[in-house]
Amino acid sequence: MKFEVTILGSSSATPIFNRNPTAQVLNINEHLYLIDCAEGTQQQMLRFDVKASRIDYIFISHLHGDHYLGLVGLLSSMHLNGRKKALYLYGPPHLMEIIELQLKYSETTLHFPLVFTQTNTLKAQEIVNNNDIIIETIPLDHRIDCTGFIFRQKKRLRKLIKERVEALEIPIEYYTAIKKGKDYTTNSGQVYKNDTLTIDSDAPKTYAYCSDTMYNEQYFEQISNATLLYHEATFLHEMLDRANDTHHTTALQAGEIALKTNAKKLIIGHFSARYKTLGELLDEAKTAFPNTELALEGRTFVIE
Amino acid sequence: MKFEVTILGSSSATPIFNRNPTAQVLNINEHLYLIDCAEGTQQQMLRFDVKASRIDYIFISHLHGDHYLGLVGLLSSMHLNGRKKALYLYGPPHLMEIIELQLKYSETTLHFPLVFTQTNTLKAQEIVNNNDIIIETIPLDHRIDCTGFIFRQKKRLRKLIKERVEALEIPIEYYTAIKKGKDYTTNSGQVYKNDTLTIDSDAPKTYAYCSDTMYNEQYFEQISNATLLYHEATFLHEMLDRANDTHHTTALQAGEIALKTNAKKLIIGHFSARYKTLGELLDEAKTAFPNTELALEGRTFVIE
Repeated sequence: MKFEVTILGSSSATPIFNRNPTAQVLNINEHLYLIDCAEGTQQQMLRFDVKASRIDYIFISHLHGDHYLGLVGLLSSMHLNGRKKALYLYGPPHLMEIIELQLKYSETTLHFPLVFTQTNTLKAQEIVNNNDIIIETIPLDHRIDCTGFIFRQKKRLRKLIKERVEALEIPIEYYTAIKKGKDYTTNSGQVYKNDTLTIDSDAPKTYAYCSDTMYNEQYFEQISNATLLYHEATFLHEMLDRANDTHHTTALQAGEIALKTNAKKLIIGHFSARYKTLGELLDEAKTAFPNTELALEGRTFVIE
Repeated sequence: MKFEVTILGSSSATPIFNRNPTAQVLNINEHLYLIDCAEGTQQQMLRFDVKASRIDYIFISHLHGDHYLGLVGLLSSMHLNGRKKALYLYGPPHLMEIIELQLKYSETTLHFPLVFTQTNTLKAQEIVNNNDIIIETIPLDHRIDCTGFIFRQKKRLRKLIKERVEALEIPIEYYTAIKKGKDYTTNSGQVYKNDTLTIDSDAPKTYAYCSDTMYNEQYFEQISNATLLYHEATFLHEMLDRANDTHHTTALQAGEIALKTNAKKLIIGHFSARYKTLGELLDEAKTAFPNTELALEGRTFVIE
């Protein structure tokens, strides 16, 4: 099952030349899930060949402009391009009020259902549970109400050992039950234990998205053992005071969080406009957690 | 005096690959005036090296997203980048309501005065009158309340004939009066007529911005004799029915309007996303008005 994230924006606060504010798109089993939607996200999607028509879920972390100002434009384009299927939107209180006001004054009635679920920014909650994935909010510690999101793959059914099942000439109609763990009994009463017919499916993977937040141990347990952790790293650690004042994280802290929460891999983003190049931020995070990469725009990370 | 316009966006309705929705920036005597501000305008400004800090006036034609969705992002960036001087904003009713709602929920108090003037979308009105320029709204015929804007250079003072003034050893303190048309009388009573000391300044130039609108003669008189006319040309004339339904103009109509209103030059823009190349639109407008160019992004037109 495909499980990967493509970075559409990695800048904090304002766009700078060649760096757009935050947006990411997850491909989960060929369905697209958009996380945050800064101004220019739809242009970035054109640039990186991400089809808006394939997005069914959008998640907005908070109402700072660098995380949602591209949303109304994207919804308008979906509308103008003939979308009919429902779009599921998750975000903090007041997001719909902002959207509705702008649709009202442009005299736009969307041709598709926009199904909004308000996130609880104080308490982790499960907001999506479908065939592929369970998604929870992560209450974060920012200047205004803000949540991250954690995407937990579901455990898949066991895999048939093809040669074994064929050699025994087990009828196809038994396959699903066997994948679910049942033993197989022949007409003559011979029993084949399940673990001789199947192997376990891959361990479910987890993607944790943490932006924007200051270092706060309260969310560490929830994100523990992530296969891939995205964590904001707005500043170098020499600017810790500024990070604390603005409720952001330093690159060193992001590395420490990945280490403490036992992440398999870390990507850092949400870089302050003051950093024209990003090597120092990467090096700093790596001093705490070597398996770190930069969330550069256009880059796709397979969650494996 | 510098008087030129740079195109930041030329697409209608939605961005497409390599074409952003509407925005333009006028340089009038080294002051910048922004007309419309679609999503991604601040990114286009970075791309084309237009400094947001130099903009003192912003004009929004109407509340369709492809003309204003970049505004809150631009205001936020100005705020974050330390702007202190006032910004003068002109736009239709409800624009401030939209801005204020978004500032409220991001808990942002702008560090600079944002001085809003609501445009009257039914009646032409003078909205700016400073040392360089007089700006009027142009009520247009669109699906929602919409105005264009016309920028009329002020007549400058007469120009001194330098050699003549110097030969007569006229003291510098007399220069302004002479530029204003006064004769010069020497201490001995000799009178030099003004037209022997000065020449007339250049004829004032006019830039008319007409987007979005359907063909409607009501605004033709107001835009007559424009030095440069920007007119939307969303469709080819074969799509006239669609143009009328959506209250837009065809390229042929734009050419006809330039001809009827005696424009010196025409630029067309606001191209529908259906046109991947623009040659046909240009050719069609030229059949009515040969001195036409495409409002391509990044291009600067001197108004002369």
